[in-house]
Amino acid sequence: MTKSQIDALLKRIEGTEKGGNERAKAIVNRIIRDLFYTIEDFNIQPAEFWAAIAFISEAGQNQEWGLIAPGMGFEHFLDLRLDEAETKAGIVGGTPRTIEGPLYVAGAPVVKGFARLDDGAEEDKGEILFMQGQVFDMRNKPIPHAQVEVWHANLEGFYSFFGPPQTPFNLRRTIITDDLGRYGFRSIMPKGYSVPPNGSTDRLLKLIGREGNRPAHVHFFVSAPEYRKLTTQINIEGDPYLWGDFAFGTREGLVPPIKRLSPSEAKAKYGINRNVASIDFDFTLHPERKDVVSTVVERARRTETAAV
Amino acid sequence: MTKSQIDALLKRIEGTEKGGNERAKAIVNRIIRDLFYTIEDFNIQPAEFWAAIAFISEAGQNQEWGLIAPGMGFEHFLDLRLDEAETKAGIVGGTPRTIEGPLYVAGAPVVKGFARLDDGAEEDKGEILFMQGQVFDMRNKPIPHAQVEVWHANLEGFYSFFGPPQTPFNLRRTIITDDLGRYGFRSIMPKGYSVPPNGSTDRLLKLIGREGNRPAHVHFFVSAPEYRKLTTQINIEGDPYLWGDFAFGTREGLVPPIKRLSPSEAKAKYGINRNVASIDFDFTLHPERKDVVSTVVERARRTETAAV
Repeated sequence: MTKSQIDALLKRIEGTEKGGNERAKAIVNRIIRDLFYTIEDFNIQPAEFWAAIAFISEAGQNQEWGLIAPGMGFEHFLDLRLDEAETKAGIVGGTPRTIEGPLYVAGAPVVKGFARLDDGAEEDKGEILFMQGQVFDMRNKPIPHAQVEVWHANLEGFYSFFGPPQTPFNLRRTIITDDLGRYGFRSIMPKGYSVPPNGSTDRLLKLIGREGNRPAHVHFFVSAPEYRKLTTQINIEGDPYLWGDFAFGTREGLVPPIKRLSPSEAKAKYGINRNVASIDFDFTLHPERKDVVSTVVERARRTETAAV
Repeated sequence: MTKSQIDALLKRIEGTEKGGNERAKAIVNRIIRDLFYTIEDFNIQPAEFWAAIAFISEAGQNQEWGLIAPGMGFEHFLDLRLDEAETKAGIVGGTPRTIEGPLYVAGAPVVKGFARLDDGAEEDKGEILFMQGQVFDMRNKPIPHAQVEVWHANLEGFYSFFGPPQTPFNLRRTIITDDLGRYGFRSIMPKGYSVPPNGSTDRLLKLIGREGNRPAHVHFFVSAPEYRKLTTQINIEGDPYLWGDFAFGTREGLVPPIKRLSPSEAKAKYGINRNVASIDFDFTLHPERKDVVSTVVERARRTETAAV
């Protein structure tokens, strides 16, 4: 169809809008316009359109939109846009942010200073990991009683409350830093995983010649009153997909070195007579700025209640 | 972000595509690019983005994408594009096509010549409708043994197999025209209805200042070997939303006049001593053309088995 025919149809559709939310209308109309022109420019046939609708619908039923969004680069793009908004406001440096992903669960047990994240089920299957550090402000002053929320996958690539049953809140804790801003935890070294095989995300990625690999990583929310909330993750160095994350989440400054401790070294440092891996990682937060877009992102998240 | 920064990110994302389906890649990349620029141009915030993702997902779970697609004008746009493809190939005239909607069910009972569509449950609540006509080719020659698939909603606006339980295939039949190309049926005059209150479609429409009214109508697939399949509907004249269909399905040439027959007239014509409404409507099909895009549209449809 000609541009004027398409624009006439768009105008007719938009003409049915009376009132409503001006911003929502403008955005919806823009998206519809772009899609109409995509249909026209690619001469998309009805069967192709309905296959796309079936895909969109099925991915909703599969709960996979939270994977498709990062997989198509949107979540990383939103991070870069937040970076830019902060840079424009003079907020630079500090720990880089990166994607949250879809698997955070609110309500994890709150522990002061040091937590053990794993329930022991995989203690003999993987490498024992200790990770520790401090939360600082931009002047290198420790932030006491900061909140370090941490979550990661088990050795099968599953998060507690999603996938095969695990102990509630396995590999999830909220750690409160001590008076020196210190946090620490013991866990199992996470492994990389892939998106659910033959799920909507996997099929979309394969269709466009991609793979759904997520290199090993650990997620964090780090927050404290009067500071800007940090959403980030660290990646595990050496993972073959370290820079091949399907979600584009790996960033410079978020791949700390790993120290391997012998049983005697581990015994001296952690009181455990086994080989362990150890990661030191500090977080640096910016002071809150009411005049800059908030880093507290509202999105649908699951909430569970920790057993008392 | 600047255009060159956004384009660099898009290039990085596209750079992960190795192989795959070239057409799918081009279309997916176009859609992602357009959405990235929509996010940038409207300065869409993370909470807005995640609200959209939650909406997309929920509409999949609600099975409402089949309503949103026509509601946003896409299904009508596809019809206009088919019209144009046919016009370019010299296929003009005949009965206009219009949208199928999401509620066709394959497998309806097959009846020769004349069918009663309703199960009698609403016989005393609504107006009895008789509809009849012939299926013609473009030279006005009747097409015997053509297939007239007909389906419509009950007085509550629900289709059998969707919504509150009804007799299987209530208000759905496949009628085979007789030797003179004639079809006919008795049913209950359908009423208009609206999209499910507070469903995804309803909430989206309200957000952009629209309403989800669907004027009373009857759906048809009309087909015969060697002819182009026709997907269409007739609208019931006088409906207050006749030209306010949220799905943009009403078209000139598809709003036949309704005759009201007195009991004596009905007795003479249909053998029923009651007030009835009567609609005459003929369908005209084009001969099949293998060189023109097919009007047989593949999409996910439900199939049920008629009781024997």
